[in-house]
Amino acid sequence: MTLKTQRTKLRRAPQRGAHDRATIDAILDEALIAHVAWVQDGRPAVIPTLLARDGDHVLIHGSSASRAIRALRAGLEACVEVTLIDGLVLARSAFHHSINYRSVILYGTLEEAPDKERALEIFTEKLIPGRWEHVRWPNKKELKGTAALKLPIDEGSAKIRTGPPVDDDEDYELDAWAGVVPLTLTAQAPVPDPLLREGIDTPEHVRSLLM
Amino acid sequence: MTLKTQRTKLRRAPQRGAHDRATIDAILDEALIAHVAWVQDGRPAVIPTLLARDGDHVLIHGSSASRAIRALRAGLEACVEVTLIDGLVLARSAFHHSINYRSVILYGTLEEAPDKERALEIFTEKLIPGRWEHVRWPNKKELKGTAALKLPIDEGSAKIRTGPPVDDDEDYELDAWAGVVPLTLTAQAPVPDPLLREGIDTPEHVRSLLM
Repeated sequence: MTLKTQRTKLRRAPQRGAHDRATIDAILDEALIAHVAWVQDGRPAVIPTLLARDGDHVLIHGSSASRAIRALRAGLEACVEVTLIDGLVLARSAFHHSINYRSVILYGTLEEAPDKERALEIFTEKLIPGRWEHVRWPNKKELKGTAALKLPIDEGSAKIRTGPPVDDDEDYELDAWAGVVPLTLTAQAPVPDPLLREGIDTPEHVRSLLM
Repeated sequence: MTLKTQRTKLRRAPQRGAHDRATIDAILDEALIAHVAWVQDGRPAVIPTLLARDGDHVLIHGSSASRAIRALRAGLEACVEVTLIDGLVLARSAFHHSINYRSVILYGTLEEAPDKERALEIFTEKLIPGRWEHVRWPNKKELKGTAALKLPIDEGSAKIRTGPPVDDDEDYELDAWAGVVPLTLTAQAPVPDPLLREGIDTPEHVRSLLM
């Protein structure tokens, strides 16, 4: 299955592009934040928001009262982008400096996700696998105040830059150091809530984030 | 100076908002990637791109031939968003799970940055301070193929979530562990280009990224 259309065909650096679901899903699953763009009164708008994938859809959620959610749930077209940063690419020439990254851009129209409790479960498990069974599940008031929206993963593309710098032939003679400085989003030691009741140890599903 | 306008007034969770330049500039300076949205043929579009700040402007750049650059340099309105991820916020209820983050949204119209060589210097130094003096500077052909655009930092807002989870009063009695797992974008050991000439050691400006 390909997500390639006239709009998602990659014109710049097509060798960095991909349109297959396995590549796209892996990027969506690793990213915490999506950047959701829409047209608000004829003008561009974009917000960051948590994302999660549910099979063939990307889920986003928010307060039912938020301006962004109200605009998007009205069935406006959206463009959803996620980007993971993998490293600094240091070339011998200023021009060929870059970063290693993995990004996805999807197009489509957001619809209501019918099962909001299921959506909140997917978001909770996305943040930290194994969490859902340890927390209080949403009550009626919370579900009422939440909007969950879904976008089908059927028009889009991935773009990936990986590996060492690529310099012009004549620049390989220069004295400049060249290479990649990998960057990773890394979990640090958990910080317990100052209001945490005594006697509650850091559970396995939290400690395992550090491995 | 405030960047507050009717459009950038924060309606949701205003206690998380800021409109002062010091807060906004610090976020722009730490972020590597901006998410630039515009209206393309009536439809929303958003791309990730490197950003750098030059005083009162945000700079972006790209190939003169790219579709995004061609759309944006024509003077279309843009919305530029950056987001830094600081941690997972684990509450006692599923509903109050969140992330700690710092984000900025700016509105405006992009203009050509007149000095493209200076823009490339700013980008190179943004990626890795001290780099510019060690690399080959751009030649005429490279400058010709590059577009550098600038957006004034004069309409926008920052939004920041920090600190521990905030649970409903009655949930503090639950057995669930609650707290924050900090996340940081961390540099790993530099990987030299396989084509690096022998005898070139990792320079101080690269090694210092690891500290």
